[in-house]
Amino acid sequence: MPASPANDPSLRSWIDIRPTDDFPIQNLPFGIIDVPDWGPRLAVAIGGYALDLYACAQLGYFDSVADDVPELGAALPKVFRRRSLNAFLKLGPTAWRAVRERVSELLRHDNPALRDNELAVRTCLLRQRDVTMLRPVKPANYTDFYSSREHATNVGLLFRPDNPLLPNWSRLPVAYHGRTSSIVVSGTDIRRPHGQYLPSGQTEPVFGPTQQLDFELETAFVVGQGTALGETVPVGQAESHIFGVLLFNDWSARDVQRWEAQPLGPFLGKNFASSVSPWVVTLDALEPFRVAGPAQEPTPLPYLQTSGEHHFDIQLEVLLLPAGATAAPFVISHTSTSHLYWSMAQQLAHHAAGGCPLEVGDLCASGTISGPTPGSLGCLLELTHGGTQPLALPNDLQLSYLRDGDTIILRGYAEHSGIRIGLGEVRGTVLPAAE
Amino acid sequence: MPASPANDPSLRSWIDIRPTDDFPIQNLPFGIIDVPDWGPRLAVAIGGYALDLYACAQLGYFDSVADDVPELGAALPKVFRRRSLNAFLKLGPTAWRAVRERVSELLRHDNPALRDNELAVRTCLLRQRDVTMLRPVKPANYTDFYSSREHATNVGLLFRPDNPLLPNWSRLPVAYHGRTSSIVVSGTDIRRPHGQYLPSGQTEPVFGPTQQLDFELETAFVVGQGTALGETVPVGQAESHIFGVLLFNDWSARDVQRWEAQPLGPFLGKNFASSVSPWVVTLDALEPFRVAGPAQEPTPLPYLQTSGEHHFDIQLEVLLLPAGATAAPFVISHTSTSHLYWSMAQQLAHHAAGGCPLEVGDLCASGTISGPTPGSLGCLLELTHGGTQPLALPNDLQLSYLRDGDTIILRGYAEHSGIRIGLGEVRGTVLPAAE
Repeated sequence: MPASPANDPSLRSWIDIRPTDDFPIQNLPFGIIDVPDWGPRLAVAIGGYALDLYACAQLGYFDSVADDVPELGAALPKVFRRRSLNAFLKLGPTAWRAVRERVSELLRHDNPALRDNELAVRTCLLRQRDVTMLRPVKPANYTDFYSSREHATNVGLLFRPDNPLLPNWSRLPVAYHGRTSSIVVSGTDIRRPHGQYLPSGQTEPVFGPTQQLDFELETAFVVGQGTALGETVPVGQAESHIFGVLLFNDWSARDVQRWEAQPLGPFLGKNFASSVSPWVVTLDALEPFRVAGPAQEPTPLPYLQTSGEHHFDIQLEVLLLPAGATAAPFVISHTSTSHLYWSMAQQLAHHAAGGCPLEVGDLCASGTISGPTPGSLGCLLELTHGGTQPLALPNDLQLSYLRDGDTIILRGYAEHSGIRIGLGEVRGTVLPAAE
Repeated sequence: MPASPANDPSLRSWIDIRPTDDFPIQNLPFGIIDVPDWGPRLAVAIGGYALDLYACAQLGYFDSVADDVPELGAALPKVFRRRSLNAFLKLGPTAWRAVRERVSELLRHDNPALRDNELAVRTCLLRQRDVTMLRPVKPANYTDFYSSREHATNVGLLFRPDNPLLPNWSRLPVAYHGRTSSIVVSGTDIRRPHGQYLPSGQTEPVFGPTQQLDFELETAFVVGQGTALGETVPVGQAESHIFGVLLFNDWSARDVQRWEAQPLGPFLGKNFASSVSPWVVTLDALEPFRVAGPAQEPTPLPYLQTSGEHHFDIQLEVLLLPAGATAAPFVISHTSTSHLYWSMAQQLAHHAAGGCPLEVGDLCASGTISGPTPGSLGCLLELTHGGTQPLALPNDLQLSYLRDGDTIILRGYAEHSGIRIGLGEVRGTVLPAAE
């Protein structure tokens, strides 16, 4: 599809935005803000601000769009006063694009319509630090893929040294169903879970707080257009079902996972919490960052074959703020989504290949994203070789798995030609296990 | 908790009910009926009829209950005019019990209140054959356990002859997360799915219609009371979170499942469809059918230890109506939920042990229920030893896996002292794969 005018690199906003900011006028990601006294509503991030779409709609700033896109017109302004993006997503891609492009117009440096209306700006433009971010979507279903070859190989080496990558891995995007009820927004503390596990070298399992709490660096896409039972999606049309992308931390209890996961996969080792970043960056905004992705050998079966560029190059960082630290967090891993073997289009086409309905608001996570170098691994299981080789960090800190009080921050951004499209961050701090 | 007066075996109804009927006055399961011209609403099954709770409430038949249970009173009659039981379940156990007991009163042979009001009876009491049954709950999340030792052993023997039952199996109720979006109500046709699989003896996978379509005989419980993030549930209190039980057919594509499921568990081999029976039988109604369940050795860890009877003896049957058949379906398996190793209480306590929130409307299925004899196996994978020993059926029929046009019917009922509490049935017919 043609590039959106909202992506034009020459656009500038009347809002002051630093070049290192995640949310320039070319980004315009969607989220849910909770405004003190006024409740939750949809917003778009711009620089350090959130633009309150509900307030804008009430003031008539979407009237022209409502005329052009009748399904949006019929839903305004109420569809902007919701606790999740789901109802807005259900209006479809024409509505999403029309709103993003209208917001882009309103924020352009040379458009006085909002800029010069002081009362409107005071109502509609809120500092992000003054609002609470809510979980952006109510996930209908959550699927976790396993699409980084480096991650699958590294984990396989720990569990099956002679046979690290199983034969199905390079033939299909392996995935499993996760749990939606424990998906929380960035900033939510993560209580160390209890679970059953087999202590190393012992034969009797125990039940207690996990001793091997880990993060997983992932991105996830949000399904914006669903499918009916029995409907499949040609891989060439798969991206039209994707609204956008966010950061995803799939917290994991490795000891629990190891003991429980055969033969049916992870359960309590994963479902105690997953954290998402609050702003969903649209696939439209990521359009300039397409890359070809790794060569796929063996050639995928026809239902997974694509031509053109369907991967995206989003730089990713993991930062650790150790318990008790007062200094800034430091980077413990740096990688990119361009390392992923299977594209989002292939993941979605595979997901629908058997006729399982996709629902608006579904989250499909990438699986842990690791790169080829020791500094680009996406979880502590890999970074510490299963906990046996602690990370040596500044201030004589040795880290195997996460300790109570540790904070993990995932960040992501795509950047070239001076334009930075950021995903923001997702953070969580480990709380001690319940008594 | 004390037995409900609605369970009294001496109760009789003014509605004529045969002794073999699944829905005597002691049962009173809840479901969603779609009434032509009037739309979906809650109903209770009685004999061959459905009692329209919304119509009853409009006519004042729940006024006394509304006075006694304020949370119900505030929600009536609207909470009975919904497309799922979820909103009613959220009112809590006091409300569920009050409604069931009031319905019991209204249907007693000696209560003229409804019986003698001809116009009310004509409005409220509908023949089941005149209404469409909808999916009774909108499943918030779906978890499939694996709690039949016989099933886990039989499947293990096919895949790992020297090590059929993995060491974790007898220590915890193994489970995995399933997909809610493809859960359909009884009567929905099941389209044979496409999928990727490795044909026997070959090294290159193919993509096409599954050649090994199977059913799985399961029951599932409906969560009626949720938990918050981080909250756990003592196993002794677990049953208070369960509203009721239904029949569950976890359709499976064995070739797809075998190829995809390592290391993260089943995905497209399962998520194309699961079928549920339309009436949810309350745990209250099943109270008289408690049994001790199998001895658990090794002794479970304390968080899974229970005393008393927490298993239930529900007889289960699988019937096949072969493609093209004109005669009655015939039974191909007969077993009981009493064979399950892990109880629903243990399943639920384990599920919550890491703090993962349970949500109202969650479905937790048992996993395939097999008994110890060849005639008591719960899926074709077991009944035919992985498809290698076809079932010899009447009329010279040899069945390995399901063929287009085959219909599978699961039935369930608990029975003693002349009282039969039925779960009704769940059925589905296999349609040919899409072109």
